[in-house]
Amino acid sequence: MSSAGLLKVVVAAAGGRATGWPAQYTARLITKHTRTLSSASTMEQRVITIDNVNPHVIKMEYAVRGPLVIRATALEKEIQAGVRKPFNKVTKANIGDAHAMGQQPITFLRQVVSLCLMPSLLDDPNIPSDAKQRAQTVLAGCKGRSLGSYSDSPGIEIIRRHVAQYIERRDGFPSSWENIILCAGASEGIRGMMKMMIKHDNSLKPGVMIPIPQYPLYSATIAEFDLHQVGYYLDESTNWGLEISELERAYEEGKKLCNPKALVVINPGNPTGNVLSRENIENVIRFAHEKKLFLFADEVYQDNVYAEGSKFHSFKKVTMEMGAPYNQMELASFMSCSKGYMGECGLRGGYAEIVNLDPQVKALYLKSISAKLCPTTLGQAVMECVVNPPQEGEPSYEQFIEEKNKVLSSLAKRAKMVAETFNSVPGMSCNIVQGAMYAFPQIMIPERAIEAAKTAGQAPDVFYAFQLLENTGICIVPGSGFGQQPGTYHFRTTILPQEEMLRTMLEKFHEFHVNFLKLYE
Amino acid sequence: MSSAGLLKVVVAAAGGRATGWPAQYTARLITKHTRTLSSASTMEQRVITIDNVNPHVIKMEYAVRGPLVIRATALEKEIQAGVRKPFNKVTKANIGDAHAMGQQPITFLRQVVSLCLMPSLLDDPNIPSDAKQRAQTVLAGCKGRSLGSYSDSPGIEIIRRHVAQYIERRDGFPSSWENIILCAGASEGIRGMMKMMIKHDNSLKPGVMIPIPQYPLYSATIAEFDLHQVGYYLDESTNWGLEISELERAYEEGKKLCNPKALVVINPGNPTGNVLSRENIENVIRFAHEKKLFLFADEVYQDNVYAEGSKFHSFKKVTMEMGAPYNQMELASFMSCSKGYMGECGLRGGYAEIVNLDPQVKALYLKSISAKLCPTTLGQAVMECVVNPPQEGEPSYEQFIEEKNKVLSSLAKRAKMVAETFNSVPGMSCNIVQGAMYAFPQIMIPERAIEAAKTAGQAPDVFYAFQLLENTGICIVPGSGFGQQPGTYHFRTTILPQEEMLRTMLEKFHEFHVNFLKLYE
Repeated sequence: MSSAGLLKVVVAAAGGRATGWPAQYTARLITKHTRTLSSASTMEQRVITIDNVNPHVIKMEYAVRGPLVIRATALEKEIQAGVRKPFNKVTKANIGDAHAMGQQPITFLRQVVSLCLMPSLLDDPNIPSDAKQRAQTVLAGCKGRSLGSYSDSPGIEIIRRHVAQYIERRDGFPSSWENIILCAGASEGIRGMMKMMIKHDNSLKPGVMIPIPQYPLYSATIAEFDLHQVGYYLDESTNWGLEISELERAYEEGKKLCNPKALVVINPGNPTGNVLSRENIENVIRFAHEKKLFLFADEVYQDNVYAEGSKFHSFKKVTMEMGAPYNQMELASFMSCSKGYMGECGLRGGYAEIVNLDPQVKALYLKSISAKLCPTTLGQAVMECVVNPPQEGEPSYEQFIEEKNKVLSSLAKRAKMVAETFNSVPGMSCNIVQGAMYAFPQIMIPERAIEAAKTAGQAPDVFYAFQLLENTGICIVPGSGFGQQPGTYHFRTTILPQEEMLRTMLEKFHEFHVNFLKLYE
Repeated sequence: MSSAGLLKVVVAAAGGRATGWPAQYTARLITKHTRTLSSASTMEQRVITIDNVNPHVIKMEYAVRGPLVIRATALEKEIQAGVRKPFNKVTKANIGDAHAMGQQPITFLRQVVSLCLMPSLLDDPNIPSDAKQRAQTVLAGCKGRSLGSYSDSPGIEIIRRHVAQYIERRDGFPSSWENIILCAGASEGIRGMMKMMIKHDNSLKPGVMIPIPQYPLYSATIAEFDLHQVGYYLDESTNWGLEISELERAYEEGKKLCNPKALVVINPGNPTGNVLSRENIENVIRFAHEKKLFLFADEVYQDNVYAEGSKFHSFKKVTMEMGAPYNQMELASFMSCSKGYMGECGLRGGYAEIVNLDPQVKALYLKSISAKLCPTTLGQAVMECVVNPPQEGEPSYEQFIEEKNKVLSSLAKRAKMVAETFNSVPGMSCNIVQGAMYAFPQIMIPERAIEAAKTAGQAPDVFYAFQLLENTGICIVPGSGFGQQPGTYHFRTTILPQEEMLRTMLEKFHEFHVNFLKLYE
């Protein structure tokens, strides 16, 4: 294979058509891979090659960690190495990674998990008694009283019980601890449940309905598992509204190509930042029931609701309030310690509440997770803190509430600031960020820029994002990584840079966009 | 479906033919599931049912966490609830879970990770400076200096670099940090690499050669990924020797049914406790090269070598020593913090070193792990301690070495004790435990017991294991969960109960076996 041919495959593999690489990066890649190739050419044929590798891995894309981010990391290294750039710092607004953007950890949470790891700290008079009590609870649930022992595959029983109690307090309806599966972040829970639907036979593929724009974990997992993706568009003109008529349209279209079996709803929305009304959720549930769809409720942003009048309603609660037959539907709801006010992405904690699963399927599901041994016990201990935080009257309560409110009120302020700023930029429009941690503004890309993108072999929004990165150091994710209405262009930015940094970022962004329009108009 | 029909499926699903349930448990299951069924029968048809669920999940088995362990856990609860049993304690010798069996964590390791989580401890004068230095190194590698931020998907760069240095010191050959992938335990690394071979088309399935007996992660993953398992028998008569002639036989047989593409070697062996000689490894490498097989070297027990004359040789080192063309073979080696002297199973740390991967396949592999975000940062920090422990002259060195040697010398003592005891029991024989954490003794099961097992609908070794559990509280895993020569019966026990507990366990085991023989002979 020629080096150009090789490059084409590498590029397709690493980023796909929609997320092509900018010219200057492409040039370096060719050099790099030609070098690799020439040394490789002396070698014998490999066992695993591009021709026999898992084709679903070729197909899957995960834009949040795609070529733009790789380039952003390379830029960081160049700056460190003293290379002059038009900026002195890369701002990674591509990923919902709060601590990376300067958010401070919640003291109570870190105390509890440190106590679990180093029980000698239980004698430390500076650590409050409620943190010690939580740690003792976790340790009592661990075999040999050590976080170093494996837990049961669905998690430590006492933490599962506390998760169920948390859900009961949140919803006002019973939750069984046996329906709670702890997992290393919500992603693992989502993948683990979706895996149950994989089927490779000659029948129509199982179909999974996902919003467009969507969080690319879903498209990546659907591609990897060889399921069929059925996209339903959120309506940008009604603040990313989830219209039942659009669900109907997507379902009918999808039914021609697959056997639709699941409906994914992300609420609050990623990347769209919308929060569904209770009435809307009720209608979605009716729709899912009518079409016999398994409901995946991605509710990891349940603590992140900012806009006045917006309120989080869990799908589980609404099905319960609606009563039979809706309260008997199969439903999986996912939560994480990575988002909310905690932002503990790296510690990998999460849970799935899975209700009304067929008992035989549940037995199989439990078996399927057993070979993975157990989710990190430390991530489980973090979830204990999330669902069992300090209560009024406990010694940590005041500091905890202060820290929690500080994060959430600042996020609310930043959500507003982001939408307002983008709406003040000519050629941009941005819906209200009602919740979650992202804005998904629409950008007007001039015809001449679209042509320039074509010349560079890139989608217009990818071209725009690379230009932004190379000129300002701001790393966002192009809308094509999440999906968007054909002919429209968007990007996702997090609202996570701390206030001062965010203000600077938005100013630079504004300036870049005006220059971009000028250059190509 | 009748409740009996349902039960049949549930049992098949949860344990498979080979690992059926004992009669008294079966009875309870029927009751339980009839109840579930009658409440379920008022419900509508589920979306996911036994008829449309992922068939590979039905097929997969993971005996280490199978029905015996579920029963053992239930027994523990019964004892807690005051039910009288012929024993007052369940001994879980089914799983390599050192801390659960009373092993104490390594102080240095716990200090480092606690410091990473609660940096205020950096001011604690009681924590030694080398632990603080390691924690500072990890934190400097984390975005926002917080373990709460996501790392790159293959792990924190500085820790990957330290892993590479550790391998260089171990082997005396270069290791590139870019070939190091940190993962949440070795299992995740193994599954992630094996996933690259999945292929669903009309050609022969990719085949994976695994030892028999094997660690059931392999058979479970092969089943889940719809690959083809090609078992090669280890030779019990030569201390579980890995004979090349047997590899040849298995390969030729396998080639009729699949396209063999990978060879898994577990060294030191699980469940067999054997340690391969350097010469043996060299021959295995020659074989793999001749047959064009991707080498999976499961080397998680590299620190667990006890027998005189036995020594750990990494596959990577041997390929390097052999030179071209062997040093250009595709090879993945796996390591973990769960085993060795650390025993930190719950914290989920591990790494894969993957060499000579086709560059295009490597790009795809990196993309495939990106959607899983990152392995737990805390597990990564643990790996930092494993590959970068206190050095002579550092303040923690003496305590560290003392703790490490204490664990390893006690394990060596227990390895010897286990094999000697089983060899002293009539109707049992056990190979020397040269390494790892397990013995895999052969048991003579009398004809009448085989008949009784048949009546109970169980494989003979499963019947034996359930009888052992119900009578003594000792939980082991039947040989059929790992594979064994037809007509032979084995079980796997860990050597992990602390010395006093192990002695008691072995005495009770001995007594049980004698009674069992008496009863059925």
